[in-house]
Amino acid sequence: MRVDELQTPVLAVDVDVLEFNLATMARALPGARLRPHVKAHKCTALAARQAAHGHTAFTCATISEMEGLARAGLGSDLLLANEVLDASRLGAIDGRVSIAVDSEATIRAAVAGGVCEVLIDVNVGLPRCGCEPARAGWLADVARRQGLEVRGVMGYEGHTMLVEDRATREAAVAVSMDSLRVAHADVGGEVVSAGGTGSYDCNTFATEIQAGSYALMDTAYAKLDLPFRPALFLVARVISVSRDYAVADCGLKALGMDHGDPMVDGGSVWFCSDEHLTFAPHEPLEVGDRVRVWPAHVDPTVAYHEQVRVVSGEDVVDSWPVDLRGW
Amino acid sequence: MRVDELQTPVLAVDVDVLEFNLATMARALPGARLRPHVKAHKCTALAARQAAHGHTAFTCATISEMEGLARAGLGSDLLLANEVLDASRLGAIDGRVSIAVDSEATIRAAVAGGVCEVLIDVNVGLPRCGCEPARAGWLADVARRQGLEVRGVMGYEGHTMLVEDRATREAAVAVSMDSLRVAHADVGGEVVSAGGTGSYDCNTFATEIQAGSYALMDTAYAKLDLPFRPALFLVARVISVSRDYAVADCGLKALGMDHGDPMVDGGSVWFCSDEHLTFAPHEPLEVGDRVRVWPAHVDPTVAYHEQVRVVSGEDVVDSWPVDLRGW
Repeated sequence: MRVDELQTPVLAVDVDVLEFNLATMARALPGARLRPHVKAHKCTALAARQAAHGHTAFTCATISEMEGLARAGLGSDLLLANEVLDASRLGAIDGRVSIAVDSEATIRAAVAGGVCEVLIDVNVGLPRCGCEPARAGWLADVARRQGLEVRGVMGYEGHTMLVEDRATREAAVAVSMDSLRVAHADVGGEVVSAGGTGSYDCNTFATEIQAGSYALMDTAYAKLDLPFRPALFLVARVISVSRDYAVADCGLKALGMDHGDPMVDGGSVWFCSDEHLTFAPHEPLEVGDRVRVWPAHVDPTVAYHEQVRVVSGEDVVDSWPVDLRGW
Repeated sequence: MRVDELQTPVLAVDVDVLEFNLATMARALPGARLRPHVKAHKCTALAARQAAHGHTAFTCATISEMEGLARAGLGSDLLLANEVLDASRLGAIDGRVSIAVDSEATIRAAVAGGVCEVLIDVNVGLPRCGCEPARAGWLADVARRQGLEVRGVMGYEGHTMLVEDRATREAAVAVSMDSLRVAHADVGGEVVSAGGTGSYDCNTFATEIQAGSYALMDTAYAKLDLPFRPALFLVARVISVSRDYAVADCGLKALGMDHGDPMVDGGSVWFCSDEHLTFAPHEPLEVGDRVRVWPAHVDPTVAYHEQVRVVSGEDVVDSWPVDLRGW
């Protein structure tokens, strides 16, 4: 089938660009130096490609992502980089499961749920989960006294990820990793898990980088000076044309909107409605024409779709279920 | 089961508030005066409740919504208030199907797909689909010459919907309906389909109002002086607490973000991440506490969820599949 024959709106990945991104990252961070974050794509089929590039340990944001990877045979080393208060489903996973803990309550939850390995989650500047660096050693002691294996520390410098100026970004990452270094000295363990697509080449302290967006990219990350290229887009069809604008059949229920409007090839976006994209085309368009729409944030975009069509050039070569959705 | 026993994050509807909203609207716009828009909830179970309140004709935004309503036995009068270029799935629906057309191409698509009835979609000020009012009569003639039954006109004054000042909103609605009146005079037909939750009581020209949000409401519509109450929320759990803020396990993959951040009971939202809500609680919270989160835009929020739990007070009394998702 050709891309032009797909019913619209439809989510698509350019598999050649994807493979370029995966290969580029695998050269920079080979094997276990990268722990790909599957929250960015929620596809076990795409995770299998990351494993084929040598990355067999994965990062997850939800229990469902952990379960799905294990079911797909990708459970050799799974990290839930998030806190949970009911770990029973995690304890039941057939695979190696580690989770982040940042409090006595989450340590108790790990023990009660039958999870054996943890990372101490440390706040390195992003106001989200993670204990104060000075408290990490004490929490590690608490965890070890309860019989947990503490593999090391985690500290996500998410607030630095989309800083466009490289020098500013690098400096911010370094400050965050100074905090994590303090915590790691107290906690011990082999693992220092941190970083993301925006810091994959400047976070030199982490033993493993949790990048996810690099595989598919989006217009927000495209503003940075990264070698990865946008691979994920929507195909939409022009359903109405007026003097100043055109309307395509792809709206905000097909797009994560927290980073703002998408971009559209050959036009300037005015706004999105539930099922519409109103834009000013640079050249006249006709009703029925197809356009490609580029999401501003890939993670919540993928989460709206049941499947992603895999395209090479103008051919549809496969379809991958977005099988890690939900909680 | 109690609400406090649900795994989080979870989407929930307060069925008592929902019934209040449905009854309030049914009194204001009884029977066919309301053509509920199902895009706001995407649940055939909720549509069945709207039918029980006397509204048996429905508005849809996607082909999947049309198909799903018909499968659920609610297909006695379905309007796709949107343009399509491939109407074959619509022509195959076992039920009464009308669609919006605003061009010769969409008229040809209706004929080719086996759809028999159309409304002429008229631009009444929102830059989206819809023909110029002066062109509506000509399009109706084109449609009739091709054997279509033209039931009347449609013109959605969406740009007026969230205008907070009532007098300003009413004036804007009146201007839009003046445009639709011009078009209707040329087109003819019994149906004038327009309006939404924001104009349900001031759009006096439309023969049927396409309101959807009134059933569940959201924080954007709550700013208006409407009698409907918020019925849809997420239950989240506090997974981390710091000195100045708390973090709940409900993020932007569980929430439509185009209208901005949600609200949280007992706190002020700082920001959402994929799976986290960082907020400043008004009173100290503990890890494990549950909070209710109120979406800013109900339509794209619902579209992220497989099901919505139906609650009455603190009891979970049912679960409705969100079975009208996708395209």
